[in-house]
Amino acid sequence: MSAILDYPAPASENNLSISQLVAARKPGHMLPADLYLRPDVFAADVDICFRREWLFVGVAADVPEPGDAFTVEIANSSVIIIRGDDEIIRAFHNVCRHRASRLLEPGFTSVAKLVCPYHQWTYELTGELLFAKNMGKDFNCKNHGLFPVHLRDIGGLLFVCLANEAPAGIDELAQVMAPRLAPYDLGNAKVAHEESIIEECNWKLTIENNRECYHCAVGHPELTRSYPVAALGCSIDELSADEYRKVQAYEKDRKAKFAAWSARGLESEYHARTDSDQDTYFSSERLMIDGRGESATLDTRVASQKLLGDIQDKDMGDLNLWTHTSWHHFFCDHAVTIFVTPLSAERTRVTTKWLVHKDAVEGTDYDLDNLTKVWRATNHQDSAFVERQQSGVRNPAYTPGQYSPFLEDYVDLFTTWYLGRLQAAGY
Amino acid sequence: MSAILDYPAPASENNLSISQLVAARKPGHMLPADLYLRPDVFAADVDICFRREWLFVGVAADVPEPGDAFTVEIANSSVIIIRGDDEIIRAFHNVCRHRASRLLEPGFTSVAKLVCPYHQWTYELTGELLFAKNMGKDFNCKNHGLFPVHLRDIGGLLFVCLANEAPAGIDELAQVMAPRLAPYDLGNAKVAHEESIIEECNWKLTIENNRECYHCAVGHPELTRSYPVAALGCSIDELSADEYRKVQAYEKDRKAKFAAWSARGLESEYHARTDSDQDTYFSSERLMIDGRGESATLDTRVASQKLLGDIQDKDMGDLNLWTHTSWHHFFCDHAVTIFVTPLSAERTRVTTKWLVHKDAVEGTDYDLDNLTKVWRATNHQDSAFVERQQSGVRNPAYTPGQYSPFLEDYVDLFTTWYLGRLQAAGY
Amino acid sequence: MSAILDYPAPASENNLSISQLVAARKPGHMLPADLYLRPDVFAADVDICFRREWLFVGVAADVPEPGDAFTVEIANSSVIIIRGDDEIIRAFHNVCRHRASRLLEPGFTSVAKLVCPYHQWTYELTGELLFAKNMGKDFNCKNHGLFPVHLRDIGGLLFVCLANEAPAGIDELAQVMAPRLAPYDLGNAKVAHEESIIEECNWKLTIENNRECYHCAVGHPELTRSYPVAALGCSIDELSADEYRKVQAYEKDRKAKFAAWSARGLESEYHARTDSDQDTYFSSERLMIDGRGESATLDTRVASQKLLGDIQDKDMGDLNLWTHTSWHHFFCDHAVTIFVTPLSAERTRVTTKWLVHKDAVEGTDYDLDNLTKVWRATNHQDSAFVERQQSGVRNPAYTPGQYSPFLEDYVDLFTTWYLGRLQAAGY
Repeated sequence: MSAILDYPAPASENNLSISQLVAARKPGHMLPADLYLRPDVFAADVDICFRREWLFVGVAADVPEPGDAFTVEIANSSVIIIRGDDEIIRAFHNVCRHRASRLLEPGFTSVAKLVCPYHQWTYELTGELLFAKNMGKDFNCKNHGLFPVHLRDIGGLLFVCLANEAPAGIDELAQVMAPRLAPYDLGNAKVAHEESIIEECNWKLTIENNRECYHCAVGHPELTRSYPVAALGCSIDELSADEYRKVQAYEKDRKAKFAAWSARGLESEYHARTDSDQDTYFSSERLMIDGRGESATLDTRVASQKLLGDIQDKDMGDLNLWTHTSWHHFFCDHAVTIFVTPLSAERTRVTTKWLVHKDAVEGTDYDLDNLTKVWRATNHQDSAFVERQQSGVRNPAYTPGQYSPFLEDYVDLFTTWYLGRLQAAGY
Repeated sequence: MSAILDYPAPASENNLSISQLVAARKPGHMLPADLYLRPDVFAADVDICFRREWLFVGVAADVPEPGDAFTVEIANSSVIIIRGDDEIIRAFHNVCRHRASRLLEPGFTSVAKLVCPYHQWTYELTGELLFAKNMGKDFNCKNHGLFPVHLRDIGGLLFVCLANEAPAGIDELAQVMAPRLAPYDLGNAKVAHEESIIEECNWKLTIENNRECYHCAVGHPELTRSYPVAALGCSIDELSADEYRKVQAYEKDRKAKFAAWSARGLESEYHARTDSDQDTYFSSERLMIDGRGESATLDTRVASQKLLGDIQDKDMGDLNLWTHTSWHHFFCDHAVTIFVTPLSAERTRVTTKWLVHKDAVEGTDYDLDNLTKVWRATNHQDSAFVERQQSGVRNPAYTPGQYSPFLEDYVDLFTTWYLGRLQAAGY
Repeated sequence: MSAILDYPAPASENNLSISQLVAARKPGHMLPADLYLRPDVFAADVDICFRREWLFVGVAADVPEPGDAFTVEIANSSVIIIRGDDEIIRAFHNVCRHRASRLLEPGFTSVAKLVCPYHQWTYELTGELLFAKNMGKDFNCKNHGLFPVHLRDIGGLLFVCLANEAPAGIDELAQVMAPRLAPYDLGNAKVAHEESIIEECNWKLTIENNRECYHCAVGHPELTRSYPVAALGCSIDELSADEYRKVQAYEKDRKAKFAAWSARGLESEYHARTDSDQDTYFSSERLMIDGRGESATLDTRVASQKLLGDIQDKDMGDLNLWTHTSWHHFFCDHAVTIFVTPLSAERTRVTTKWLVHKDAVEGTDYDLDNLTKVWRATNHQDSAFVERQQSGVRNPAYTPGQYSPFLEDYVDLFTTWYLGRLQAAGY
């Protein structure tokens, strides 16, 4: 056999420390394989990216009434999200202070008190222990309340932080997003549908995939009905004269549209907190929708006739929000929020919720299949992509590939931020 | 969010040695999380609690005839229990001395010789190698018999010990239990039903749950038909005047009943070998049964009209036996024996056998559903409890909770004994 | 209990290094347990026996036309085997050089180019990158071709080597086997059937089992129709006078047959490259078939009326080839090739292909059930044997048993060679 190319020496990454793996990363390229594979790296990821950072975990509309509750499973943590009788939404670790039983099973429920099913210890919705039988007279309920978890409700989006000290970056997110989200009035939305899929890949590959649209033109026929090819980014040098004209025209349209939105008080500019030396990674921008321009549906018209909040004008584009574990699209008629939870180094849960106005009626105002079709299809297509990629990363012949500087620059932002977080944690 | 309680610092238990985990235990509280979770602790548990100690693994009634055999799977060990032509029950490691094939598959069988299915090496029921073909003239069958395992038949209960040197404590168990078990004549019982369930929890949580009835009042509606609330233990200070009277009355009844049983030669007093510096943990007591007082069934009457042994008087109460891996209840008409086998740090098999007189006829003398209903229900209820608990122990927010001094004192005995065994083994 | 034999001290192998395990092996006996169990040993096996050695992975008949391709999964590696437009069969790592996606899913396919489904990077069948969009003007396709894998086509059998430097021993295999295989013309055969089974055992137990026929007499009733008991080997000392006569007669027949085959230009002598200090372990011999002598079928007649290549005389015996990961039987009318891929320390995939002349028509020239019956049965019987054996090896009471010097000498050759490879690699 005449060798066409030299075969690369097998990476001896197994012997590298996490710090060495971080240092081994070549700028503008994928990460060293072990950062997607090794259990010790996964444990570090959980600690650094999931326990110390703010995480999007659901929406206020998940718990519309006092006593409404659900649990969020983050690695080995289970967190209760519950609305109190005072309407305040709180979060608690889902562990009884007596014999450690889970209080609530995964899923949604509604309760008057939080009663442990094992020995009936009974907690208030504020977490205080109300009573515990047969513990003796020296036992003090006040010292045995549920452990609280930091929670922030920003425009109807719920963020929790499992750390003792929560990072301050959430204030910038609140400052940027609260006014952008205000017109959508998500506190008065309802969850029309929720579903989770399991992807057999590292959570970072799920996020990397979400941060580029290089794969959209061929890979996402449903999604690209709403976004023109010219919007996906390109290498100017490779364009034909015709393609170049289209990109120029798109850019001109975009500027005019931003000015028009701005005149209506709708912030649209790209805002990013993505520096690798900062916590609370996020970015937001309002994108133009192609075709009819109303919503990211197959026909680019609204999926729900009842618009969100008090919105009258359907020309709202696609307001997006990206965090290090979630992505969100807000349209005039509905919103899609998607977040990941890490299950193991090579397994990730992806949860999607579709929101509409709380008064929108299924079958009358919206058709559920039409509402969910684009992102259900997109999620399943992405799932196949990232699983094929994980398989390749596991292959000893893997060498980190180069990102396209034009279409994968946001991927690079994310992986570079991730490495920065590892370094900040001492790796 | 106004914090109600301080959030506990995440336990840095991952860095603790097993000895440090043992030392970190707070008296009267659950164990540090890693003792229920870590694979290295599990390996130590298997070594110390399952390989060095005597284990209840079945009953003489499992092998009523010569050649009857079954296997017991204990972690990676598989042990053949077999009755010889001389009626003696023996135990052997289930490994052919040639190419290591299992001789018997899990389950019950009856054989004339133990023949390896791989190359037909043939062993006597006493373990001696009878013949092996084509091994050459220097090969000596006498050196290739099956490796024996210590076995004791105590009143029809079979205990094995995988260690070279079996602990002497079994003599005390025999001395206490042989006379207590004699009237039930378990050697002439039959196994009416056997079933196993898998619990997704550490084996110690299964045992801890078994050692308290704090959870019975609400958690076990079937079981508590046989045991009055007053029998479960209580904090005297918390009792109402009415409750206090009931407890006093129960205690008076109990003393009278013990005296009556004693007069009939039925030992009833609580006998315990539970000190943390001793091997062969066990305790036994005869408990009063509520209602009709005959048996722990839904109507507290006998489940089998044919009583065990030559028992005439149904007033025998509930003779129990607890070991570190099993619990047993002996009634006038039937017996229930339950034991655990550890499958992994977070997975445990629980096997239950129901025994009746060997001449009792199903459908005539007993109804199988009625016989098994209480403990099938109880086992399934307990399974849910311990799995919820395991989930809580896995949660990084877990902190070992305090046992009730009144209702969970036997739990504390068990976990304290367990720690003593780890310490005795050098941890 | 009166102990018949001393119980062995539990092997403290967990503390032994791989080198110590290698040194602990007793000649003529099975390997220490941990060599069949430990993940670190498995990783060493994959590195030494699967990444550095030549592996049989399929046949030229798997890819009869240009563009025909399939993937081979070896531990975490995935290799594309593909026939080029120039008819040359090549092998490549199944990883896109961009974002590491698998190019081909497991199974067989036919393609014009190798196009990555993720971002449509497009490779020639020779592995060169043809184009990649939007990578910018500095990007050079020439540096981003697929990584090639060594491949040798020896008489229609495909061998790959994942190492940079492939061992030279393959030349001896080619020199010996090319003339032996020539009459069968496997390049013009077709794969009539392929199937894989998963065996819950270490890959070495699968190979050990294949290297002896001590278990055949009882274990493989279908297979032994083709091979007389006298051919399986024996301990002369143990034979009866009648058995001795049969063995003598068999040996005389064998010599006469070898001479007759030799006169027809058919090499039959046992050729072995099995020394423990050599790479590329293999052996080959032509065996007599019992009964009608045509083929290893239930009636020992051909399964396919259309013979392989231009074969006219059905008296070809059973030409076999053994490597460290495969075994092969070539008959006048069909061929069977079987190879293992290691999935984990205790899980192995066994893949079998049955080949007939490419012009043989199913239902007319051959009956698929008749063609496959003997080795399907044999594989399933072996699967049960090796899984029982793995269970025994996992038992702490396991002690490495002695191989029969008469019937398990080839097993010893294999395990001794294996240890030699570990030693050569520095263990």
